[in-house]
Amino acid sequence: MNDPTQTLREMFAAFVAAADPARCLPPHLPAPPAGRTIVLGAGKASAAMARVVERHWSGPLEGLIVTRYGHAVPCERIEIVEAAHPVPDQAGHAAAGRIVALAESAGPDDLVLCLISGGGSALLTLPAEGVSLADKQEVNQALLRSGATIGEMNCIRKHLSAVKGGRLAVAAAPARVLTLAISDVPGDDLSVIASGPTVPDSSTLAEAQSILKRYGIAVPASVTEHLDKVSSETPKPGDKRLEGAEALLVATPMRSLRAAAEVARQNGLAPMILGDAIEGEAREVAKMHAGVAKSVALHGHPLQAPAALLSGGETTVTMHGHGRGGRNAEFLLSLGISLDAAPNVWALAADSDGIDGSEDNAGAMLGPDTLARAEQAGLSAADLLHDNNAYVFFEGLGDLVKTGPTLTNVNDFRAILVGAG
Amino acid sequence: MNDPTQTLREMFAAFVAAADPARCLPPHLPAPPAGRTIVLGAGKASAAMARVVERHWSGPLEGLIVTRYGHAVPCERIEIVEAAHPVPDQAGHAAAGRIVALAESAGPDDLVLCLISGGGSALLTLPAEGVSLADKQEVNQALLRSGATIGEMNCIRKHLSAVKGGRLAVAAAPARVLTLAISDVPGDDLSVIASGPTVPDSSTLAEAQSILKRYGIAVPASVTEHLDKVSSETPKPGDKRLEGAEALLVATPMRSLRAAAEVARQNGLAPMILGDAIEGEAREVAKMHAGVAKSVALHGHPLQAPAALLSGGETTVTMHGHGRGGRNAEFLLSLGISLDAAPNVWALAADSDGIDGSEDNAGAMLGPDTLARAEQAGLSAADLLHDNNAYVFFEGLGDLVKTGPTLTNVNDFRAILVGAG
Repeated sequence: MNDPTQTLREMFAAFVAAADPARCLPPHLPAPPAGRTIVLGAGKASAAMARVVERHWSGPLEGLIVTRYGHAVPCERIEIVEAAHPVPDQAGHAAAGRIVALAESAGPDDLVLCLISGGGSALLTLPAEGVSLADKQEVNQALLRSGATIGEMNCIRKHLSAVKGGRLAVAAAPARVLTLAISDVPGDDLSVIASGPTVPDSSTLAEAQSILKRYGIAVPASVTEHLDKVSSETPKPGDKRLEGAEALLVATPMRSLRAAAEVARQNGLAPMILGDAIEGEAREVAKMHAGVAKSVALHGHPLQAPAALLSGGETTVTMHGHGRGGRNAEFLLSLGISLDAAPNVWALAADSDGIDGSEDNAGAMLGPDTLARAEQAGLSAADLLHDNNAYVFFEGLGDLVKTGPTLTNVNDFRAILVGAG
Repeated sequence: MNDPTQTLREMFAAFVAAADPARCLPPHLPAPPAGRTIVLGAGKASAAMARVVERHWSGPLEGLIVTRYGHAVPCERIEIVEAAHPVPDQAGHAAAGRIVALAESAGPDDLVLCLISGGGSALLTLPAEGVSLADKQEVNQALLRSGATIGEMNCIRKHLSAVKGGRLAVAAAPARVLTLAISDVPGDDLSVIASGPTVPDSSTLAEAQSILKRYGIAVPASVTEHLDKVSSETPKPGDKRLEGAEALLVATPMRSLRAAAEVARQNGLAPMILGDAIEGEAREVAKMHAGVAKSVALHGHPLQAPAALLSGGETTVTMHGHGRGGRNAEFLLSLGISLDAAPNVWALAADSDGIDGSEDNAGAMLGPDTLARAEQAGLSAADLLHDNNAYVFFEGLGDLVKTGPTLTNVNDFRAILVGAG
């Protein structure tokens, strides 16, 4: 078996590289149109995507991208605006208005290139005409308190927006609209990524009204009025206004997992992708990963060692303590405790965007000697996990994985290598 | 695809049948000895095992088995005693004393047949000579409060016991001792099942003393004295007194999973065993199972549909509400919510002993229509899960799985069938 820590690092690098705009975007760029090319978009990776377009585009280029504070990269012809995430701010609101205006300015010979990535929904916020930002925010707050599902909330949001749910593509019609998206959502649904500004919406006005009724949500008069107008309906699949609109996924968690699996294979490990959208409490999801890894080691199920178990998605951390660390470090510390120094098992967990939670690391690594080294260093794994302090645990061992911001995001990467007996 | 609910029921039946003493025990029974055959044992399945021995044995037979209240079955030649679990009582204590005495009565031509299953550790409790039951209980309470690991606690317990950690086999020497065990522990370690009364113990007196010191546990003088005597050491691997002792696993969670996988295969499904010892909070472990099932349906990873995902082990439930239901019903309700009515997915979760928690069901089942039927029936999946009330949810739908006590135990069975798109 090759050096497992090196293999894990290479697998993570391949996972991120497969979602790097410089690599995944150019093959999908179309030929320049007869008219203007207008680049629009929103998301944490969208500025990096815009720069790639600039570098590969022949012909005139203009446009506007809104990205998260700290995620801008220098562009020459496409304007980059930074705004707040996850709670929208005035900068995002103003940029969204200008993005819709740019779309409306597009003519039949023009191409609107829409660069979409995770976070775009909060960054691209513009209420429908007649609804104030304050009214929309009021409904949003009531929704969050109501117990409505995320799908139900998105139905309301799309019907109160001037951009979401295909509205941006309607604004750009009759121009051709090509959307290139990096997915960070379970199921890779293009109508969900950044709330699908250029994609038909199958939810309806009638559903939006019945959701408000079901949860007894009182809304401002402007909202009631807006939802009563037939013109407030989002474009449905088959809508003629979206005939010129096409949307493609350029990067997904599963494609990145397959790239990492290929690295495992090249290193003599049988790879198995358990899933691309694993959710749940980080420390509990870790226990199940440990159970699968132990079963590989002991029984050769679900596959024979030497093997690499991979998974993607986004776990959650319910804070009990006051420590430091993101969901990947927490996952890994719990995994280490459950593995209990099992021989021949190594693991890495990290966020593809390079930032695990709000720390300076992407994630961390562990091996069979991690618990023993921690004990020597006076680090109590159980106590630090209890205090949500996994960053301190792995920092103390020198086992943090640091990449800096990667300017892409296909969620988390977890890999466990199980060596042969 | 055959009727998925029928397939799931057959898979669960095969899982239990593979651990049924009537089926798994006879192939391992030896030829009768020249002398007496003494049947001893402890555990939830041990009375059922004793009855199977009686039915298949030619020649004289005697012995004593201690099982949990409600788990006795009528035997003619082997005495069955019921005692308390998981907190030991006087009945178990008295039976353990008689079991050791019977072992001591065995001569070189005799065979001691030891029938061990889960729960045996609490049922077979006898302090070492010179240590009172009260003193042992005091140490046990202090251990539970100390933060010591389960492995550390077992090291202490074995060194304060007259039966655990190989002591029962020492008592029976020089008779031949054949132990037949049904495993309910992760790793199927024979020295862990029922605390290994007939199996060498690799933990040491010195370790026991250093654990007490590490956690600052003050112990009664009788315990200090006992741990200072060389004769208090448990028999180690290679100990001559255990030369005539042999131990076999007659049933394990993995063997039962393989039997269920074979039923899946016969029904045209590709089976995958994710692990035989999956642990963690039931509702979170369910989310990860849902993530794997969705990935099968959407991406063909970790395997192509039609497929059956199987897992074993024992999850836990942290009570937040005041509802009814064991860990398998809770797992299944959370799974249903996470699957969100995914088409072509069916699941069953149940305890192999036939009792999920303290209810009258072994587990429950779900299908793609479960959430819709619940809504029609006025059952809120989210509210009932929040209140730990999964029994009420599945009872209301008529989807409980009931078998009655099965008199064996290889922990939980979970299966998810994913049909082809």
